[in-house]
Amino acid sequence: MNENIPDSSVRRLSAYLRQLEVLAATGVERVYSKQLAKHLLVGDAQVRRDLALFGQFGRPGVGYEVADLIEVIRVILGTRRQWKVVIVGAGQLSGALLRYPGFGLRGFDLVAAFDVDDKKIGTQIGNTIVRPMEELEDVIDEYSARLAILAVPPDVAQPITDRLVRAGIEGILNFATSGLDTPGGVYVSNVDITAHLEELSFKVNSNRP
Amino acid sequence: MNENIPDSSVRRLSAYLRQLEVLAATGVERVYSKQLAKHLLVGDAQVRRDLALFGQFGRPGVGYEVADLIEVIRVILGTRRQWKVVIVGAGQLSGALLRYPGFGLRGFDLVAAFDVDDKKIGTQIGNTIVRPMEELEDVIDEYSARLAILAVPPDVAQPITDRLVRAGIEGILNFATSGLDTPGGVYVSNVDITAHLEELSFKVNSNRP
Repeated sequence: MNENIPDSSVRRLSAYLRQLEVLAATGVERVYSKQLAKHLLVGDAQVRRDLALFGQFGRPGVGYEVADLIEVIRVILGTRRQWKVVIVGAGQLSGALLRYPGFGLRGFDLVAAFDVDDKKIGTQIGNTIVRPMEELEDVIDEYSARLAILAVPPDVAQPITDRLVRAGIEGILNFATSGLDTPGGVYVSNVDITAHLEELSFKVNSNRP
Repeated sequence: MNENIPDSSVRRLSAYLRQLEVLAATGVERVYSKQLAKHLLVGDAQVRRDLALFGQFGRPGVGYEVADLIEVIRVILGTRRQWKVVIVGAGQLSGALLRYPGFGLRGFDLVAAFDVDDKKIGTQIGNTIVRPMEELEDVIDEYSARLAILAVPPDVAQPITDRLVRAGIEGILNFATSGLDTPGGVYVSNVDITAHLEELSFKVNSNRP
């Protein structure tokens, strides 16, 4: 199942979930595809196609039940369980992530941070203690962690990735700009902030006569 | 021009550019679509289609000239010029961005940071001084800045966005999780790190029997 679902649909599911949670928090019980399409620069037909991919069909004039749809999307995304996540690299970016309260609410528990810097090892960031890289494999094993966040300099990203994969990590959120090689069945999601700026540059530039 | 180019193609152009720069740095002069497709989880036919959208055609058995293609992609993305970028919110995430040396090399010059916190105002992060929010409009005007990075709590994201738009900002990189309303011709690119984790959760989860 789910093998033929485009990445773009999965990303839109996350966006729908964000919208649905806002609606639920304000007491809204039913929602139309048009409301979900709002803010997302997609049409309501796209919303209906995305949800239909997963067997969810709104009814004309009735729409979708907000609470049901939240549950269904969480099941699809696999975030009704709590994922244990390790973070490698304890720089400022990791500091911001470790202090962000939203991950726990969304199903992601940042259980450990790792660094090579003796000055950082043993310090606490948010609720997490920074540990030495030597403990990486043991901690991944201890927590049965399957996801990792990689926020390290590009030149060490690949060797650390290899260690993560050998230790059983199956999904890596990568902030290093280099492309990572991983075996089949290990997924990488790249956060490339420069690419976001380039997308804006392209659009603003194209906007001009 | 460029109006009918899908966002996904623009994002892949950024990824091709990263690969091409790595190749150029190692002295490679020609490249095949297959090499560009590597690491990007797309096929080489997709690479050829993307580049053909912009009038770039590799020749069978010859491929593309690396230096030429880098220049062409920079022209398309609009990053041969240096964009002046302001950043609103001087927390840890902004700290990481302000200290990242890569933006300048890619065409993005972070000229000013803004915060409401008196303890931060006047301090220097990287090469940038943190200024009070009252100076936002004047600084945007002074630098003719057209792009902004928004790294503020969700509840103030929309009013600050409105100020940025009135001051002439046309592209906003948004780290706040809320959807932003902007008028036509003002573009928002959302960095949603939770959505990246959900994408990984979905894939790792789907991987299991």
